[in-house]
Amino acid sequence: MPHFTVVPVEDSATSNYDSLEGINWVDYRDTGQGGHPGQQDTEDSPFLSSADADRKTDFYDRNLALFEEELDIRPKVSSLLSRLVNYTNITQGAREHEEAENTETSRRKAPKSPNMGTLMGVYLPCLQNIFGVILFLRLTWIVGTAGIVQSFLIVLMCCSCTMLTAISMSAIATNGVVPAGGAYFMISRSLGAEFGGAVGICFYLGTTFAAAMYILGAIEIFLKYLVPQAAIFHASDHHGGDSAILNNMRVYGTICLSLMAVVVFVGVKYVNKLASLFLACVIISIVSIYAGAIKSIFQPPDFSICMLGNRTLVRDQFDVCSKTVLEGNVTVPSQLWRNFCSSGNMSSPQCDDYFNQNNVTEIQGIPGLASGIIRDNMWGDYLEKGQILEKAGLPSVDVHGAVESFGLYVSADIATSFTLLVGIFFPSATGIMAGSNRSGDLKDAQKSIPIGTILAITTTTLVYFSSVVLFGACIEGAVLRDKFGDAVSKNLVVGTLSWPSPWVIVIGSFFSTVGAGLQSLTGAPRLLQAIAKDNIIPFLRVFGHGKANGEPTWALLLTGLIAELGILIASLDMVAPILSMFFLMCYLFVNLACAVQTLLRTPNWRPRFKYYHWALSFLGMSMCLALMFISSWYYAIVAMCIAGMIYKYIEYQGAEKEWGDGIRGLSLSAARYSLLRLEHGPPHTKNWRPQVLVLLKLDEDLHVKYPRLLTFVSQLKAGKGLTIVGSVIQGQFLDSYGETQASEQAVKNMMEIERVKGFCQVVVASKVREGIAHLIQSCGLGGMKHNTVVMGWPYGWRQSEDPRAWKTFINTVRCTTAAHLALMVPKNISFYPSNHERFTDGTIDVWWIVHDGGMLMLLPFLLKQHKVWRKCKMRIFTVAQMDDNSIQMKKDLATFLYQLRIEAEVEVVEMHDSDISAYTYERTLMMEQRSQMLRQMRLSSAERERESNVRRMHTAVKLNEVIVNKSHDARLVLLNMPGPPRNTDGDENYMEFLEVLTEGLERVLLVRGGGREVITIYS
Amino acid sequence: MPHFTVVPVEDSATSNYDSLEGINWVDYRDTGQGGHPGQQDTEDSPFLSSADADRKTDFYDRNLALFEEELDIRPKVSSLLSRLVNYTNITQGAREHEEAENTETSRRKAPKSPNMGTLMGVYLPCLQNIFGVILFLRLTWIVGTAGIVQSFLIVLMCCSCTMLTAISMSAIATNGVVPAGGAYFMISRSLGAEFGGAVGICFYLGTTFAAAMYILGAIEIFLKYLVPQAAIFHASDHHGGDSAILNNMRVYGTICLSLMAVVVFVGVKYVNKLASLFLACVIISIVSIYAGAIKSIFQPPDFSICMLGNRTLVRDQFDVCSKTVLEGNVTVPSQLWRNFCSSGNMSSPQCDDYFNQNNVTEIQGIPGLASGIIRDNMWGDYLEKGQILEKAGLPSVDVHGAVESFGLYVSADIATSFTLLVGIFFPSATGIMAGSNRSGDLKDAQKSIPIGTILAITTTTLVYFSSVVLFGACIEGAVLRDKFGDAVSKNLVVGTLSWPSPWVIVIGSFFSTVGAGLQSLTGAPRLLQAIAKDNIIPFLRVFGHGKANGEPTWALLLTGLIAELGILIASLDMVAPILSMFFLMCYLFVNLACAVQTLLRTPNWRPRFKYYHWALSFLGMSMCLALMFISSWYYAIVAMCIAGMIYKYIEYQGAEKEWGDGIRGLSLSAARYSLLRLEHGPPHTKNWRPQVLVLLKLDEDLHVKYPRLLTFVSQLKAGKGLTIVGSVIQGQFLDSYGETQASEQAVKNMMEIERVKGFCQVVVASKVREGIAHLIQSCGLGGMKHNTVVMGWPYGWRQSEDPRAWKTFINTVRCTTAAHLALMVPKNISFYPSNHERFTDGTIDVWWIVHDGGMLMLLPFLLKQHKVWRKCKMRIFTVAQMDDNSIQMKKDLATFLYQLRIEAEVEVVEMHDSDISAYTYERTLMMEQRSQMLRQMRLSSAERERESNVRRMHTAVKLNEVIVNKSHDARLVLLNMPGPPRNTDGDENYMEFLEVLTEGLERVLLVRGGGREVITIYS
Repeated sequence: MPHFTVVPVEDSATSNYDSLEGINWVDYRDTGQGGHPGQQDTEDSPFLSSADADRKTDFYDRNLALFEEELDIRPKVSSLLSRLVNYTNITQGAREHEEAENTETSRRKAPKSPNMGTLMGVYLPCLQNIFGVILFLRLTWIVGTAGIVQSFLIVLMCCSCTMLTAISMSAIATNGVVPAGGAYFMISRSLGAEFGGAVGICFYLGTTFAAAMYILGAIEIFLKYLVPQAAIFHASDHHGGDSAILNNMRVYGTICLSLMAVVVFVGVKYVNKLASLFLACVIISIVSIYAGAIKSIFQPPDFSICMLGNRTLVRDQFDVCSKTVLEGNVTVPSQLWRNFCSSGNMSSPQCDDYFNQNNVTEIQGIPGLASGIIRDNMWGDYLEKGQILEKAGLPSVDVHGAVESFGLYVSADIATSFTLLVGIFFPSATGIMAGSNRSGDLKDAQKSIPIGTILAITTTTLVYFSSVVLFGACIEGAVLRDKFGDAVSKNLVVGTLSWPSPWVIVIGSFFSTVGAGLQSLTGAPRLLQAIAKDNIIPFLRVFGHGKANGEPTWALLLTGLIAELGILIASLDMVAPILSMFFLMCYLFVNLACAVQTLLRTPNWRPRFKYYHWALSFLGMSMCLALMFISSWYYAIVAMCIAGMIYKYIEYQGAEKEWGDGIRGLSLSAARYSLLRLEHGPPHTKNWRPQVLVLLKLDEDLHVKYPRLLTFVSQLKAGKGLTIVGSVIQGQFLDSYGETQASEQAVKNMMEIERVKGFCQVVVASKVREGIAHLIQSCGLGGMKHNTVVMGWPYGWRQSEDPRAWKTFINTVRCTTAAHLALMVPKNISFYPSNHERFTDGTIDVWWIVHDGGMLMLLPFLLKQHKVWRKCKMRIFTVAQMDDNSIQMKKDLATFLYQLRIEAEVEVVEMHDSDISAYTYERTLMMEQRSQMLRQMRLSSAERERESNVRRMHTAVKLNEVIVNKSHDARLVLLNMPGPPRNTDGDENYMEFLEVLTEGLERVLLVRGGGREVITIYS
Repeated sequence: MPHFTVVPVEDSATSNYDSLEGINWVDYRDTGQGGHPGQQDTEDSPFLSSADADRKTDFYDRNLALFEEELDIRPKVSSLLSRLVNYTNITQGAREHEEAENTETSRRKAPKSPNMGTLMGVYLPCLQNIFGVILFLRLTWIVGTAGIVQSFLIVLMCCSCTMLTAISMSAIATNGVVPAGGAYFMISRSLGAEFGGAVGICFYLGTTFAAAMYILGAIEIFLKYLVPQAAIFHASDHHGGDSAILNNMRVYGTICLSLMAVVVFVGVKYVNKLASLFLACVIISIVSIYAGAIKSIFQPPDFSICMLGNRTLVRDQFDVCSKTVLEGNVTVPSQLWRNFCSSGNMSSPQCDDYFNQNNVTEIQGIPGLASGIIRDNMWGDYLEKGQILEKAGLPSVDVHGAVESFGLYVSADIATSFTLLVGIFFPSATGIMAGSNRSGDLKDAQKSIPIGTILAITTTTLVYFSSVVLFGACIEGAVLRDKFGDAVSKNLVVGTLSWPSPWVIVIGSFFSTVGAGLQSLTGAPRLLQAIAKDNIIPFLRVFGHGKANGEPTWALLLTGLIAELGILIASLDMVAPILSMFFLMCYLFVNLACAVQTLLRTPNWRPRFKYYHWALSFLGMSMCLALMFISSWYYAIVAMCIAGMIYKYIEYQGAEKEWGDGIRGLSLSAARYSLLRLEHGPPHTKNWRPQVLVLLKLDEDLHVKYPRLLTFVSQLKAGKGLTIVGSVIQGQFLDSYGETQASEQAVKNMMEIERVKGFCQVVVASKVREGIAHLIQSCGLGGMKHNTVVMGWPYGWRQSEDPRAWKTFINTVRCTTAAHLALMVPKNISFYPSNHERFTDGTIDVWWIVHDGGMLMLLPFLLKQHKVWRKCKMRIFTVAQMDDNSIQMKKDLATFLYQLRIEAEVEVVEMHDSDISAYTYERTLMMEQRSQMLRQMRLSSAERERESNVRRMHTAVKLNEVIVNKSHDARLVLLNMPGPPRNTDGDENYMEFLEVLTEGLERVLLVRGGGREVITIYS
């Protein structure tokens, strides 16, 4: 009986909640803005560095005595929480560090603590980013061309696509603390560097082309509606009109871009400050449209258009809409008349035929909401390029006139189609990331982002829908289809509707467009800088640096150059689809990221925003894809190729970043799925392929003893199929973790060198033999199990006093047989060729003595797939006994090989019964002497056993004789490996038999089948 | 020194080469024609059945003494070869067995030994199958419509597609002995049942629609050119022309189909006999075309066509091609005049405007080879439906006339486009499988198939190319575009060119078309029967049965019904694209099979035909896909959907056949690739998910002791992620193979029941403890390694005298710690809910005492994904010491959980220092007494240790008190598991501490982290 003593428990060394503040809490947050050195390493380290280990007595706590031994690596919750509290201050420090390097970034972040609400932080910025130039410059035209119904459809498609994307984005954005900045970070942190990079570049290119689009829009407003006189180029002939306009756009666009770039470079802070002004412009413009529409009920604005027959006339060439005017009391030709007729003489006019036969009428351009014009505009009218705008209801006599009507009629400047309009409208729906880009400044990002973004999309969608209806209900179809307002005296078409004055919208849209351009030009370089700083795309590295004033100068320069490309295209209608592509690409991936993570049930996928569903994301993804291909399938393919190339480039560069991506979960699922698929029973003979477990011996320094074993395996597999490299360390597992890791690394390095693609498994066992037995049993997983074991020959077995060397060998042979595995033992492995050698001639000789599944036939075929052995010929030898008909045998063998589709020379070696030679007896004697010596104490072998030994030795000697005779110069000899004796007493003899059998041969591969057929003549 | 005796070796029991004939050689050949019962089982069995084991002494051989112990399972090569010789006779026997069941099959095969050469066996059948109705009925029209250049392109595309397919097919067909019968067998045996079934059905549908097409072609020849009077329906009005023709086709087609079906049913042997007659018809027809073309150089045939202006007139309504004829000496209106004019009065005609303003001319329909007409036909003229055929060169005054010109002009009956023509022409290139379908009858299939097929394709391609050129060079464009020869007095257009008479081709093509129809109608039911007999598509089973006379009656009936569908479509031009789709689908998969097997380097992939390359197959595959989408993208999608549905259906039915398919190789490659991808380092915290190794205890009968452990794991994983179930059997591996297999099966069954998707690993070890250590070390592969161990509680440890029970437990805990793995120990596992229970309320309580990576937070979240736990609320308790600010702690904890996006109620339990209670001392005493008793001999524990014990017991008691107090009614309590003592002396005490800690709780899950963070607040 033990004594029991009451021990007073001292109240010493209790830790208190606050005493742990000083401990260095390492956080693995990657803000993506700057390199926290060593942040990768700290990821796996335990909580406290070892420097703190001496403090561990501090943690002792009477109430936690049960956990006290491990408190250094498993801290108390209270200490953990206390450190979490201090977390913000620490990152604050990190930010200060950044500030020194990059004042701009800090300016954006540091001064104010995140305190923006949903309205100011998300809703209004989103609103400002979504509304854009297309609403003012193109929506009327889209309504006129596509009709109200199809325009509705266009808006619906684009907006529902962005709405679904916003839902996916909300889920991603609320899945944990979002490091500052938009789609790029969201994608790269959830789908990995490759996708992130590709999407980031797409988003960057989209934003850059958006800048170009805004500039083109601004110039269009400027040149068409504000100061038409400023045009530099003028149409010289009938067909030069287009190119003159484009050249004007190019010149002014380039000037504007340069100016804006300078503004961004020197005064980015003012750009940000002016954002609300720009938003105000937009809102005022939109309000003026609504006001105008309402006013049009009572008093439609007075914009009349002049029609000749059913054709719309350009209004700036004349003032009076009639063929003649009464000057004084004399009827004289009007300006219109003069335009159409070559001679001013009223009496003998030489006029355009169409002009002659049709009447001139003047109709109301803006009949107003009450006029019922909506019925006419319900269905659109897609025009060909150059087609003259007509009003369906008016009478017209169709005559092909001879007089050129260039510039007199309003005609379509491009051919239109539904799909084109989708591409042109889509930029009006982009900009939904504006809120999530500001996540750093939000008081409660996880609440504000979803609500704000979705509300903003709802608002804008409603505005678009109502605009479509209002435009269709208020404005005459011919005016709607008139892109540049030629029929209404070159007024902005939407301006004609607005109240109090068209100038409200012209000026409002001009400023808002300039502002949007400036913002795009500010945002794009910063995005590029962020991508560059992540260092996943090496050639972008230079764009990561900022200048002294914090501006990413190089990035701004590149952005300017790319935007200039867009400006050289010069047509808003052609630039819009380009940026649509890039944005759609980006949205596609946002949806993909959400769908993948939901479907994979990543444990870390716990968005606070609950109203997502993978089906919605999938639908969004499909819509993005569909919109891409609808709006322009070739742009779509180009955009996908660009994204694909970036993906492959980043993959090829081997991005070092480990942010933990959804794709890893995908690989895991894929691997699991394929493994489970493979599980159903052993493969058919047709599919049998060697799946190799290589048993590798390590020396004392944990180096691989015979690396050539790996070389041989790599040649056998030619890079395909499963290879598991196993090794056993003698010792206790509890103490050998480090050793195991080290040897695993050594084996992996050697596998790398020998180009063996496969898996490595080092186990610790108290006995090597048991370790090997375990490896043979438990390596592999599911269908990926080895079916063949490769092991080295125990070269020192004769010299060694320790019988364990060959006992382990024979035990392994027995194990493979018990586990129904095939076995290969390459002997004289160091003479085997390296991967760089090339045998230019010579043979691989197969000695097919017993049939155990056909491994012997298959192995040379597989070896010959490798460059080293390719040139070798294959020869098959078999042994005929005296009674065998060896000629018939040879014929049969040849037929068999023909059916196996294996090319080999066939030879049947006749082995006649012969007396047992003296040499045989001599070798048997030597063998038995050795055995006897080793087991001094044991009884001498029984007579029967001796007889058996002699017969076996006889086989070995005679076979060896024949083999050496025929195959002494073969590059490789493959040979059936006899099984170990059933009776374990004869184990040493077995080793001796094998030695005799292979004596005098340079490279021998002993092969034992696994008890199943591995080759078949059937297809 | 041992004695050495010379033993005379007796020459007894030598086997001779022929003595083994009687042994039952089991071959696993699956002919796909009938079930060899048990053929699956024999696959893995060793060569000789155990019944032969007693013969093994026969094998003893002096020269093979080394191998004699295993000759029963590893036979001598001579005996193997001897059996191979007898092989043909054995399969012959199998065939005879089949014959009894199915006389037709045997009729095709048995009577003659395979002795057909390349010419008769492959070349001519292919030729007959490839040439078809399209050449005679549509090729002229295609040349006229598409022009020579584009027709060349069409032929080139279709023929190069079939040529590439033929190359792939040759490789597949020469990869070993091909079981009888065509594409279906080739695909199903190389890509597996799913693909095989899908392709087989596609091929079947293609052949069936081909029958419909041939019948429609035959009827078209019959009604248009042979006996036009036979038409039943006549056009009643201007628009009824089309539907009358179609209805005629439908009626006659149905009659013809019924007749043919009867012919096939009663006289299939005559159909096969007549094949050469049909071929002769084709060849004679083709020769007559060439002859006609050559003759046209000297003497073009006299077929004039009559043109009005540039419009082609239908020639059967009148005889003289002029407006007036001279009757006697009076100029009277011609028949033509009367057709166009309403009044017969020459003086005041009321004629069609166009007729008035244009002249009538007569031109040569077949200008002949020397005429240079080829220049006009170089580029085609795609017409709209109803468009009048015009000849470009002739003068014409365009006037829209008021008089209806119905039936007077030759007009296009359908709208044409390049893509449509591709679909219509493609059936002319199909039929390339005819040779490989006869593999059973060929003397040397592996040589004949590639040569014959490729030669046949070359021949037909050359004929097509030359025909395109000859047609374009001999025949007037307007005639070429005239599909039904209306302009040449309703002659077959190609007939007008032929020599000596158009009737040669009309009759020749009629018979060959009827013959082709009969053959398709014979072949399709047999293919369906073969698919049905394979039993991979259960609902087809009924079609596998043949009637008494061997005819697959039901299959013929179904084929007839489907062909009737084609006939109801009634238009050759609409049926052709349908069958093109199905054949293209089939060819696509042939190419896919070849490419996949080449790329996967399946060892069994050793085709005798060497001139294949995966790139060619891939190109062929792409061409098939491209042709499908070019000719009709919606048909393509429909065909793909059909194939996809069949694939999914077969997969869902879980085809039992294991033919060994290429897809398994694909899964293997995929698994290997994904595993290698996963290898790079441990996953990021974001991606951490429990990958569980469940250590399962088996009882003596190898049943699972606590199946609830599996239930719990399945709830935790909710079906996702890796689960490995490991178990250890005590014993020697060499003797326990069977036992291992049995227990593996038992575990797998239990996994099935508990819906755990994962892998099972049973190892044999001499000590359980070592086996577990090995499992922990070596389970999993590459990136698919477990990171968490789940094990049961050793319930009987207190009662058991044997300390091994808890020693193994503690050792396993130590092992997991050493291997950096997480550990979960569910206590009272039998109280855990089954998968059918649903907790509708209650809580999951987490007692977060020390932080070891966040497992405690993550696990309830994961559990709550499962239906059983979904409704439970989560509560987190943590313990505050006296000095801790518990209010602040609670706030911090709530924030932390908010950031983790985990919803839980938070509670901080204050645990004040208190004196150690008497109960604590009592429990310590009890524990120590027990320990002492167990190690009677050992020294009593030192004073320091006792002190420590008391402190630990104090913790355990106090914690238990608090936990029971708060969580006594929780559904599940999660708890930090303290680590085992560093000093192994205290092991029994450790067990006692754990017992005390969890006392009075219903379900407890003890959790130990693996030393890394598993949950993060970051996205």
